[in-house]
Amino acid sequence: MKVGVIGASGFVGGELLRLLVTHPKVEISMVTSRQKAGEYVHRIHPSLKSFINLTFSDMNLDKLTDSCDIVFVSVPHGKSNQIVNDLFKRGVKIIDLSADFRLKNPQDYVKWYGWEHPYPDLLSKSVYGVPEFHREKIKGAQLVACPGCMAVTSLLALKPLIENDVLDTDHIIVDSKIGSSGAGGQAGSATHHAMRYGVIRPYKPAKHRHTGEIEQELNLLSNKKIHVSMTPHAVNMVRGILTTNHAFLKKNLSELEIWKLYRNIYGKEIFVRLIRDKNGIYKFPDPKFVIASNFCDVGFDLDEENNRIVAMSASDNLMKGAAGSAVQNLNVMAGFDEITGLRFTPVTPV
Amino acid sequence: MKVGVIGASGFVGGELLRLLVTHPKVEISMVTSRQKAGEYVHRIHPSLKSFINLTFSDMNLDKLTDSCDIVFVSVPHGKSNQIVNDLFKRGVKIIDLSADFRLKNPQDYVKWYGWEHPYPDLLSKSVYGVPEFHREKIKGAQLVACPGCMAVTSLLALKPLIENDVLDTDHIIVDSKIGSSGAGGQAGSATHHAMRYGVIRPYKPAKHRHTGEIEQELNLLSNKKIHVSMTPHAVNMVRGILTTNHAFLKKNLSELEIWKLYRNIYGKEIFVRLIRDKNGIYKFPDPKFVIASNFCDVGFDLDEENNRIVAMSASDNLMKGAAGSAVQNLNVMAGFDEITGLRFTPVTPV
Amino acid sequence: MKVGVIGASGFVGGELLRLLVTHPKVEISMVTSRQKAGEYVHRIHPSLKSFINLTFSDMNLDKLTDSCDIVFVSVPHGKSNQIVNDLFKRGVKIIDLSADFRLKNPQDYVKWYGWEHPYPDLLSKSVYGVPEFHREKIKGAQLVACPGCMAVTSLLALKPLIENDVLDTDHIIVDSKIGSSGAGGQAGSATHHAMRYGVIRPYKPAKHRHTGEIEQELNLLSNKKIHVSMTPHAVNMVRGILTTNHAFLKKNLSELEIWKLYRNIYGKEIFVRLIRDKNGIYKFPDPKFVIASNFCDVGFDLDEENNRIVAMSASDNLMKGAAGSAVQNLNVMAGFDEITGLRFTPVTPV
Amino acid sequence: MKVGVIGASGFVGGELLRLLVTHPKVEISMVTSRQKAGEYVHRIHPSLKSFINLTFSDMNLDKLTDSCDIVFVSVPHGKSNQIVNDLFKRGVKIIDLSADFRLKNPQDYVKWYGWEHPYPDLLSKSVYGVPEFHREKIKGAQLVACPGCMAVTSLLALKPLIENDVLDTDHIIVDSKIGSSGAGGQAGSATHHAMRYGVIRPYKPAKHRHTGEIEQELNLLSNKKIHVSMTPHAVNMVRGILTTNHAFLKKNLSELEIWKLYRNIYGKEIFVRLIRDKNGIYKFPDPKFVIASNFCDVGFDLDEENNRIVAMSASDNLMKGAAGSAVQNLNVMAGFDEITGLRFTPVTPV
Repeated sequence: MKVGVIGASGFVGGELLRLLVTHPKVEISMVTSRQKAGEYVHRIHPSLKSFINLTFSDMNLDKLTDSCDIVFVSVPHGKSNQIVNDLFKRGVKIIDLSADFRLKNPQDYVKWYGWEHPYPDLLSKSVYGVPEFHREKIKGAQLVACPGCMAVTSLLALKPLIENDVLDTDHIIVDSKIGSSGAGGQAGSATHHAMRYGVIRPYKPAKHRHTGEIEQELNLLSNKKIHVSMTPHAVNMVRGILTTNHAFLKKNLSELEIWKLYRNIYGKEIFVRLIRDKNGIYKFPDPKFVIASNFCDVGFDLDEENNRIVAMSASDNLMKGAAGSAVQNLNVMAGFDEITGLRFTPVTPV
Repeated sequence: MKVGVIGASGFVGGELLRLLVTHPKVEISMVTSRQKAGEYVHRIHPSLKSFINLTFSDMNLDKLTDSCDIVFVSVPHGKSNQIVNDLFKRGVKIIDLSADFRLKNPQDYVKWYGWEHPYPDLLSKSVYGVPEFHREKIKGAQLVACPGCMAVTSLLALKPLIENDVLDTDHIIVDSKIGSSGAGGQAGSATHHAMRYGVIRPYKPAKHRHTGEIEQELNLLSNKKIHVSMTPHAVNMVRGILTTNHAFLKKNLSELEIWKLYRNIYGKEIFVRLIRDKNGIYKFPDPKFVIASNFCDVGFDLDEENNRIVAMSASDNLMKGAAGSAVQNLNVMAGFDEITGLRFTPVTPV
Repeated sequence: MKVGVIGASGFVGGELLRLLVTHPKVEISMVTSRQKAGEYVHRIHPSLKSFINLTFSDMNLDKLTDSCDIVFVSVPHGKSNQIVNDLFKRGVKIIDLSADFRLKNPQDYVKWYGWEHPYPDLLSKSVYGVPEFHREKIKGAQLVACPGCMAVTSLLALKPLIENDVLDTDHIIVDSKIGSSGAGGQAGSATHHAMRYGVIRPYKPAKHRHTGEIEQELNLLSNKKIHVSMTPHAVNMVRGILTTNHAFLKKNLSELEIWKLYRNIYGKEIFVRLIRDKNGIYKFPDPKFVIASNFCDVGFDLDEENNRIVAMSASDNLMKGAAGSAVQNLNVMAGFDEITGLRFTPVTPV
Repeated sequence: MKVGVIGASGFVGGELLRLLVTHPKVEISMVTSRQKAGEYVHRIHPSLKSFINLTFSDMNLDKLTDSCDIVFVSVPHGKSNQIVNDLFKRGVKIIDLSADFRLKNPQDYVKWYGWEHPYPDLLSKSVYGVPEFHREKIKGAQLVACPGCMAVTSLLALKPLIENDVLDTDHIIVDSKIGSSGAGGQAGSATHHAMRYGVIRPYKPAKHRHTGEIEQELNLLSNKKIHVSMTPHAVNMVRGILTTNHAFLKKNLSELEIWKLYRNIYGKEIFVRLIRDKNGIYKFPDPKFVIASNFCDVGFDLDEENNRIVAMSASDNLMKGAAGSAVQNLNVMAGFDEITGLRFTPVTPV
């Protein structure tokens, strides 16, 4: 299968190329970058030296459509919708890594992103690209929107609890911690190593944009209006997310009963690992153990006195949180075995 | 004033010595360590070379009592109570850095620590060593118990909200992030650099011990039973705590109204800085900007849609979270200006 | 092909398992650990959860010999020689990851390790496991000794210079920098995250053991006695080595002439990448761009005024420096394509 | 004494302010920044909140000269010489933190910096600001040029060896490792946290500019032409330098004899600590133990077989490598006790 990548010079684009160059069923036809057109890919992504001999092209949608079966779009939020709309009309399949087609309700773009969506009709044709939520729809989709990196961790941790309606849905707290690659490669005072190193910086304690997609997907699961309170933090690592979902149970449930809810939902999912070790050192999910893989590790603990559940999930934000999900979606759309090109053991310690 | 330090070979003991060697009103008479007796202090704490020429002694309470006006006790939880009791009977003033005299209710030791307190009568004579809460009592105390490092950050962030009774006290979430020095110097698989580096490890998602002292102190402020749900995380840094306190407001309050509550409480406190910058890069508290100082930076953000407040506090766990609080308590007990020996600007970037 | 791993609970053992579980021509028959016998492998190496369902066994050489075509031995220096000798007599092929069979001259064990080698006759039967140096011998060997992690980086950088006799061989300085995984998983004060983080700690400025194998292999290349002065440093990362080899040229050589020497030697080597970018950001080898791969990136710069060459090499100490080399040796010994199971793109940024 | 700081918005300027706000004999009259004029200092340097209430001014040399006894100039190399010349003519004392007045020979600016020095006559009036080298001259100087951060570590380690003429001066290798604050605060792809984290990046393996000042000062000590080969590396920390100076002894000297050379030179220096512990964990200098202090820790090891000495030195690049040296020079120039305002214990662990 021939694929192209639009916007391949950033962190997510580079990670996508890392996956695609060793994917056994894929051939990369074209990679584009406005800023780096004409440069060899391996000058910008030195890791890829000896794996890819292409240069970045300027974006040319006709050429991309001609030479590719599927096109990945990896450009900033707000820049993607025009490109995707143009590609969509040409009939090519699209996997979008921006936020521009994640939300279904056009009003949500005004609320969370501050702009009116220019192609509201296209929103209903896009599928939210989490196979663990929408596998069947993804199979037949022309346009798939990969999820927000923190959103997908929260959603995977909360799904069994919401689907089984065991939570007080007015007091759900989503406290995320994420490495510096999650903010993209834009250089600035706040991302300079000396100033970013060693921080635990709450960067949007209220009203973070991922709240929108989390609420949308949980609402779909539950058929009611769910309120999620999200607070992300920048922490001192490059890759990795831990999302700590604090919630209150509507009724008493034992640990065993809750495990059953999780196992029922995720028993057959290859990229969701359920984590709990009562006596060992590694009792709960920790991004340390998923780096460079497509896993989302999920686990929980119970605070019986407060009837609180702490549902935790860990993933690599560039993998399950971005490029890994994109390739997983590719596999589903193309009918490949879902693990094709993604059978990476996490790299630990690193 | 002559002081002694019992248990000075660990991280907290080392930090305490760092402060005491440059404290203008203090002379260190004796430092003890069971494990390092006979060694020069600077062999164990190489930073202190040229500042201190003492060797560690074995603990001898008579000698300590004879040669010291105040004794700091910096030994592990559960090991301190016997020593403190023996010192107390000798009439010397004591600043204890363990948890052994923080809780007032003997039953709380069974609940949170799993052992019966051997000196329950002494608990009522101990003062919880947060001057911002109990300054007057500390002045006259013979025994002061320094607070838990995460507890004090949470307490300082929540005090204005609890004291003014604006919170729904059934849904308070305390999500803490702390560096590796907070766990003490005990070497093991989980603290090995290669395995500890890069983690975001939830290490006691429910029922963490600091919950006990937070609830105790908030109850005292509010005269009602408050439920706190605490989850600490080990993160990839050595020093520093950020505590994110998520809570729900009982009624609508504007940002300005809440700022007034904070200013009323902390306007004259030298070690609590109120942080908010609407437009800059540094909008909220971040341990990055308090390292090596005794500050606790406090700030908040409002999530009006969910009527949630996110109250954040940042400190250096070895300073305001341990040795800095101990010296602040010393200054209060001794009648020194409270900033004596603690006028450190934070070290940034580091 | 069936393989076993003796001593699989450490960092190197874990990395070896990471590679073997996805190696397409290998089946793991048995993994042993004295300390962890009976435990599931994924409790000790949580990353491997869902990839391996074995438990650690006690070491039983008869069973290993029966069930394995090749046995990897990954135990500490000085503990390996007895095991390897016993396996050797049983006729099984062995890939040893310790230092016990790297040196050819038994006296060198006294000099560098401080003990007499108990099986001096076996030293001549062992092949130093760097395919770029000894590929043909490895093909037919029963026993291969994987190189020291820093040694192999230095050797690969210096080979073209020594083989072409262009260096003053009395003033070769090898200044290495290595992450914390290189020291093994033994917990102690010096490896505790809080004390190991942020160091640049010279840990054996003179007489480091790897000097012995570097000199041995360079002597073989040059047929003269070469003096290497090595100084390793522990730096603040988990994986990765940069070795800076400072040397003086015997005669003037242009940059172009030296590049030819490197290209002649490494033009066909898949795991040695030659790095130089005159104008980009990434001009020289940097472990950042080889993490989790089996590459050793090599490059150099010239200091014409002092007739000095700085030859730099970067690798992942757990990969090309240990487990990756072991699998590369396996491929050579077994007649597999040398890249089998090792076609990993480096993980960047991480 | 009233002081001003020109260019106070960067890392070095911020560190200088950190020191000056608690210096007991200094009052800050004016701080300037072209980019940040009008902003409160604590918005740019949040650590300084509650220590300083000034705003940045535009640079006005008349006002500075009127209101200050000494002016610190902390602007980029090449930008300083004009400002310093203008200040010099006004008769005010100047402490320059750039490279613009470090070198004595105008030709060296062409060689190392690529530009002709516009005020060559002023070079002879400037004193190289290392009190351990030029204390007497600094006392009477109007213009002092603070040394390069890596240069001063190398110089302090080599001084006793050069002054006593024990080295082969044709084969001196200076291998430096430095944290990210050393490169200044300029944001870019190479300094982005995600790309700078985890590197060991050789950034100018040959011909680094600090070579010029090291050679200049060693030549002065020895009265002969010394060749230094320097290679700096960016490593994964914010503060700190370790410089490993590899050199060869002209004749056999015992460890004890060499210690005597060091003690004779540094026995009375308060900011140079001699480090060696035969049996402990902390045997050699390590920046870990000098962070936030003005110390340069110096030590060595001998490689008798190669007659090599490894002389190591560790400092905090923002302190002894920049702002700390500047304040030390201030103290010397003003006749204060040299430790005034610099009696900081290093902050460890951090």
